[in-house]
Amino acid sequence: MSSVSIAAPERVGIDLGERSYSIVIGPGLIADAASYAELPAAATALVVTNTTVAPLYAQAVCGALAERFRSVRVLELPDGEAHKNWETLNLIFDALLGHGADRKTVLFALGGGVVGDMAGFAAACYMRGVPFVQVPTTLLAQVDSSVGGKTAINHPLGKNMVGAFYQPQLVLCDLDTLQTLPQREIAAGLAEIIKYGPIADMAFLDWIEANIDALVARDAPALAHAVRRSCEIKAAVVGQDEREAGLRAILNFGHTFGHAIESGLGYGEWLHGEAVGCGMVMAAHLSEKLGGVDAAFVRRLTALIERAGLPVRAPDLGAERYLSLMRVDKKSEAGEIRFVVIDRPGSAVMRPAPDALVREVLAECCA
Amino acid sequence: MSSVSIAAPERVGIDLGERSYSIVIGPGLIADAASYAELPAAATALVVTNTTVAPLYAQAVCGALAERFRSVRVLELPDGEAHKNWETLNLIFDALLGHGADRKTVLFALGGGVVGDMAGFAAACYMRGVPFVQVPTTLLAQVDSSVGGKTAINHPLGKNMVGAFYQPQLVLCDLDTLQTLPQREIAAGLAEIIKYGPIADMAFLDWIEANIDALVARDAPALAHAVRRSCEIKAAVVGQDEREAGLRAILNFGHTFGHAIESGLGYGEWLHGEAVGCGMVMAAHLSEKLGGVDAAFVRRLTALIERAGLPVRAPDLGAERYLSLMRVDKKSEAGEIRFVVIDRPGSAVMRPAPDALVREVLAECCA
Repeated sequence: MSSVSIAAPERVGIDLGERSYSIVIGPGLIADAASYAELPAAATALVVTNTTVAPLYAQAVCGALAERFRSVRVLELPDGEAHKNWETLNLIFDALLGHGADRKTVLFALGGGVVGDMAGFAAACYMRGVPFVQVPTTLLAQVDSSVGGKTAINHPLGKNMVGAFYQPQLVLCDLDTLQTLPQREIAAGLAEIIKYGPIADMAFLDWIEANIDALVARDAPALAHAVRRSCEIKAAVVGQDEREAGLRAILNFGHTFGHAIESGLGYGEWLHGEAVGCGMVMAAHLSEKLGGVDAAFVRRLTALIERAGLPVRAPDLGAERYLSLMRVDKKSEAGEIRFVVIDRPGSAVMRPAPDALVREVLAECCA
Repeated sequence: MSSVSIAAPERVGIDLGERSYSIVIGPGLIADAASYAELPAAATALVVTNTTVAPLYAQAVCGALAERFRSVRVLELPDGEAHKNWETLNLIFDALLGHGADRKTVLFALGGGVVGDMAGFAAACYMRGVPFVQVPTTLLAQVDSSVGGKTAINHPLGKNMVGAFYQPQLVLCDLDTLQTLPQREIAAGLAEIIKYGPIADMAFLDWIEANIDALVARDAPALAHAVRRSCEIKAAVVGQDEREAGLRAILNFGHTFGHAIESGLGYGEWLHGEAVGCGMVMAAHLSEKLGGVDAAFVRRLTALIERAGLPVRAPDLGAERYLSLMRVDKKSEAGEIRFVVIDRPGSAVMRPAPDALVREVLAECCA
């Protein structure tokens, strides 16, 4: 289905007082100078991207930005979660200082979640904060990581351990970019879309189930709806709890197990979305043991995750390794692991779980 | 003069809405468990200090903290501005993760400005933000760097280029720690104290002039007054402009020239306060050329800076090198260097200056 089937771009507002901004969703956005019209005036722009995305979209973005900025430079980072570290972050600072970037210079994150996390964290820190714009080109980044201002890099001892809450000026979700993604990346994005159902909106889960084949096949109107509804739910949650004092943690459903998988296998082995997909199966099992959902719910969610093309059996890292990896999760307090669990379909809470129960889940879910 | 001559600790409030906190000033604070009574409850604390300060005060601080925290660890960083970089910052993250620190863990910055900048920036970034407390043990840190939430590390191409605005929970200025400082550090602190006169309070400048010998000799009541009045002025400025949208920049009087000296000589060659002292002489010359003050004012300020034990002749780096170093200053925009200048005694503004005028200042002030 061609992009002309969708008329005007849609906007989802994220309400954070003086840090409010819009998520603009539609086809043909990144090459259109009008998409950038609302940005603050500045002399220079730096487009941070990676070696995979740059050949596809960097020229189009720079062409549109050339109308607003005297100087537009591109920095290509190596691709992949394995590079989300200090060394790569420093390449951004080197480029900014090497090009004489000042406090008004605008950073653009053109790529997936890794590029967004690193460019966003660099923007938060460079001269203690410069404006930045998220231009997510993966489904996962469009529905999750580019929205809400979480930025971070990994530490060898834990994922996303060093970062900042730092909001972009604008998020541009160009739906056309989804058509060039590898299928594995589509599946990874569907994991975060599916997530919004059990934690917040069972009607959306029904819709995803009815449309999963269209989503997997990249039907444009289906993707447009899924991206918009996901952003609406995320915007509502983040608007209530920007810095994750409480509610926002529900967006991490599946992530405690998922982060342990990513970290245990080595970052980049599984995609983040794949680990979250499998992590949701595990978190659903835990929710059942805690009485929030029944076995039918677990089977239903597992089947949907599998239809999306995601793994539903966890790698067998051993229970001790899982527990030790999860104890360094950011939600842990005083060594006690806390999980996001479904307390009833469409609602999630964070709570600790006894190690014995977690071991049962691991025994049931590991391959 | 012994510390008993000062009765109760004094408090200066810094009003930043939900990020408000107190600066507590007095003798005998760091070893007193009551000083820490207002901090949020947490299981663990990490005291970040350096190899010079640790033997003097780490034990006293840890003893007082042991009453509130189940686990108190100490991390000793190498001493000096030359170590204010990524590598040293990572030692803090390694220690936090190695000790299982969580989102509630409290970081204590025990030392001078370098320790405060690094521990503060680490606190801003670790898990996207954990509580921290400034325990400044140098005069410069007590009157300037520990107050107001600026944190940063240096980049090879510029000082304080990577950092965050991140407010502490509490600042404890224990005046007793000033008695163990090398004289050079006292002078460096006096530079930032003197600064508050020309930019904000000529009556305070009169008082400093009348008491400069007592300050140099570390007279306790004189130091107590100087620290308190400096913190009051800084708190008032920061309370109006936390993120340096405008007014706060006046606190950088002398710093554009000063940063160029520090960076040009190599960080650590001159102390920050020494470079600021000399930088204020240069900025005063520039202010005179721009018509804000007369030659008598420049002579008066220069004489006071010299009596404090600070350099008043700048190193001869060459005009081109000075200009190129100053162009990467954070206040620069689109390649134009902007200076804080005195527009009338007791009042400062930020403005660009023609290169030709800056060259005249360099010709007059360089050794």
